Amino acid sequence: MPPTGRRPGKADTRKLLVDTARRAFAETGYEKATVRGIASAASVDPALIRHYFGTKADLFRAAMGWPFEPAEVAARLTAGDPAGLGERLTRFFFEAWEQPRTQAPLLAIMRGAATHDESAALVREFLEQQLYAQLTTALPGPDAALRLNLAMGQLLGIAYLRHILRVEPLASEPVDNLVARVSPVITGHLTPE
Amino acid sequence: MPPTGRRPGKADTRKLLVDTARRAFAETGYEKATVRGIASAASVDPALIRHYFGTKADLFRAAMGWPFEPAEVAARLTAGDPAGLGERLTRFFFEAWEQPRTQAPLLAIMRGAATHDESAALVREFLEQQLYAQLTTALPGPDAALRLNLAMGQLLGIAYLRHILRVEPLASEPVDNLVARVSPVITGHLTPE
Repeated sequence: MPPTGRRPGKADTRKLLVDTARRAFAETGYEKATVRGIASAASVDPALIRHYFGTKADLFRAAMGWPFEPAEVAARLTAGDPAGLGERLTRFFFEAWEQPRTQAPLLAIMRGAATHDESAALVREFLEQQLYAQLTTALPGPDAALRLNLAMGQLLGIAYLRHILRVEPLASEPVDNLVARVSPVITGHLTPE
Repeated sequence: MPPTGRRPGKADTRKLLVDTARRAFAETGYEKATVRGIASAASVDPALIRHYFGTKADLFRAAMGWPFEPAEVAARLTAGDPAGLGERLTRFFFEAWEQPRTQAPLLAIMRGAATHDESAALVREFLEQQLYAQLTTALPGPDAALRLNLAMGQLLGIAYLRHILRVEPLASEPVDNLVARVSPVITGHLTPE
């Protein structure tokens, strides 16, 4: 920081905490990292982290720039007819990639994880510990985590081709057509054989 | 280049040509870019490009670091029983991502395209103009290019989760199991409704 003489502001403190949390989560994993340890590494009181971010899960989400509250999304997707979970997940995913407010952070996460091991570790932790953990409870049958991975692979790969490579004709396909074509595949992955 | 006084060597010339070709293909697209134009931009004789690389397609492949000869791969995949195309494509894809000789360049391409617009443009051109053009001729029915995109989305997304994020249990799944699980999905995408 330049020696301006001013005391560190809120934005500085927040950034310091986010950076420290990123490193901690990437290095030790979500389970082992603690709010107390992160506070200690940043030389602040743990209460300050709780004041700025809330729970450990909230801090983690802030550290990776994830634009959703996973528990809320999971609750919304798993509510209602189980047979419709695949279509709800597909529509939620593709619509999130269309809206500027969520597209920008999602693109940043996908790009960042592709090039920085720390970012990749963070996203891996997030998928394994939070998103999958929330969704697999709604999935019957064995291999639920693997089947969810294959479904996420279908969705993420299309996002990569559509929004990063912008390959035609996929990039110009209306979202409703995409949802209609891809939902049965996602439902197939989520349904045990 | 530092003023070492030595004449540019073969490696320097090759790198200059690859860099010039990357820019040309990314800026004007594969169709419009010419060997003559790239030679002119690099201040060399077009014959030198042909000597180093061969055809425009070969130069393009060198520029993006693509580790296969697309025509040869397409011929191999489309030979034999058409009903087996999905499984052959799936097996070829996942095995290429396992072998160090091909995994490293594929990872570099996927990472590079995620963060550099020029690299993304190159990969887009490659998929649209070469790989899809070679494979869609073997695909019956309408929307062949879109269906191939959806199939590539499934494969690429799994590669992203398995080799970049290394999400479990997908990252540890044996290739044969992956092929068995994913082939029917790819065959479904490639088969018109």
